[in-house]
Amino acid sequence: MSKNIKAVLQYDGTNYHGFQIQSGQNLPTIQGTLEKVLRKILKEPIKIEASGRTDAGVHAKGQVINFFTNSKIPIERIPAALNSRLPKDIVITSAREVSSNFHARYDAVAKHYIYTIYNNPISSPFYRNYVYHIPYTLDWEKIQKACKILEGTHNFKSFASARASTTNYIRTIYSLEVIQKDNLYHFSIKGDGFLYNMVRIIVGTLLEIGKGKREIDSIKEALLGQSRKLTGKTAPPHGLCLQEVYYT
Amino acid sequence: MSKNIKAVLQYDGTNYHGFQIQSGQNLPTIQGTLEKVLRKILKEPIKIEASGRTDAGVHAKGQVINFFTNSKIPIERIPAALNSRLPKDIVITSAREVSSNFHARYDAVAKHYIYTIYNNPISSPFYRNYVYHIPYTLDWEKIQKACKILEGTHNFKSFASARASTTNYIRTIYSLEVIQKDNLYHFSIKGDGFLYNMVRIIVGTLLEIGKGKREIDSIKEALLGQSRKLTGKTAPPHGLCLQEVYYT
Repeated sequence: MSKNIKAVLQYDGTNYHGFQIQSGQNLPTIQGTLEKVLRKILKEPIKIEASGRTDAGVHAKGQVINFFTNSKIPIERIPAALNSRLPKDIVITSAREVSSNFHARYDAVAKHYIYTIYNNPISSPFYRNYVYHIPYTLDWEKIQKACKILEGTHNFKSFASARASTTNYIRTIYSLEVIQKDNLYHFSIKGDGFLYNMVRIIVGTLLEIGKGKREIDSIKEALLGQSRKLTGKTAPPHGLCLQEVYYT
Repeated sequence: MSKNIKAVLQYDGTNYHGFQIQSGQNLPTIQGTLEKVLRKILKEPIKIEASGRTDAGVHAKGQVINFFTNSKIPIERIPAALNSRLPKDIVITSAREVSSNFHARYDAVAKHYIYTIYNNPISSPFYRNYVYHIPYTLDWEKIQKACKILEGTHNFKSFASARASTTNYIRTIYSLEVIQKDNLYHFSIKGDGFLYNMVRIIVGTLLEIGKGKREIDSIKEALLGQSRKLTGKTAPPHGLCLQEVYYT
């Protein structure tokens, strides 16, 4: 009898070409690394489903996956068995059996991302892979005001990569706030779903407002105008972290 | 007229074979990397002196160096000029001219190190290069008591690597305390000077007390007995960070 396992994982995405296996290429991915180790432990080929792919350089503190296995290995032993074989930049924090119809992607009802800015004249060797360093002054009050405009249900086509493969651009942002700790500014964003590159385009656009290159009202125009030309540069991947995925 | 420049730097030691250039070997070191970039900027060979070497994998948030230069480049431009050419895991935070008799090592009167333990059942991909992960329970009350015994002026021969090249093992620890933040435990240690591997041997010995493998009083015996056999394993380098160097 095949079991459906749901697992939560953290990873430092710095050394990976994103979550998803790139067909025909032999580049290290989170999925590829996990499936290889799972195959060794469970003695059968394993195909994992994730809540969503993350791009190269993007991190996760609460990525969720599921996979089916016929193995008789006790489920409570899976995290330790995996962690002892995985590279240290991928860690399984929990695993449990779920009903056979659970799907990590289709059943996700909301996600929480954090994008971190280090707004300091001098960069930090310790943060370098986890924050976007901005040495010049930003107007954080303006940025906070712009954040509030993005909350709610909107057509986010202007905030999606042109490579997004969807026809429905309507998404709901439940909350978008900036949490400051010293010179670290965390964009904390929760929503029912995110388009391709959506968080990074939102952050890149907000930073242009903070830099004085763009008006707060340009956010309203972008939400109405539905064109990638109305928004700012995509912020770099390494400041982004998938914090949590929610299921009902 | 030659100028003596004092500079403060931070580095992530993960990818370096320690601070000091290894003679005859072509391994990346902090010193070698710095001298190469300084030579390019100042157009002359530069020899730097540091407050002390750090081992492979050890980090610094406040390492101090000095070097002499005949260059006419304005001193206030040196940090930005260096940082734009250095790899991102080495950052100069300040530079200023000091009197010609200042020496980063001989004039240091005290140092502050922090050694960090991540005491959590599961490791973290984000802390992996900066903390020593210990999954099992430690008795932190016992460890705190043992810390107090080490404070003060003692012969620390038992807490020095056998490779230490000195005859004077008397050092003063001004303070040794554990600062806890969630599951991170920071050993904060200040003293007038440290023998080779002294902080890591102190931490390794204290951890054996926390694990119940060693009594608190064994610290007293080690201070009196003056033998490396009386102390614990050297804790791994990556948990250690040179926080600050003090000058009069």
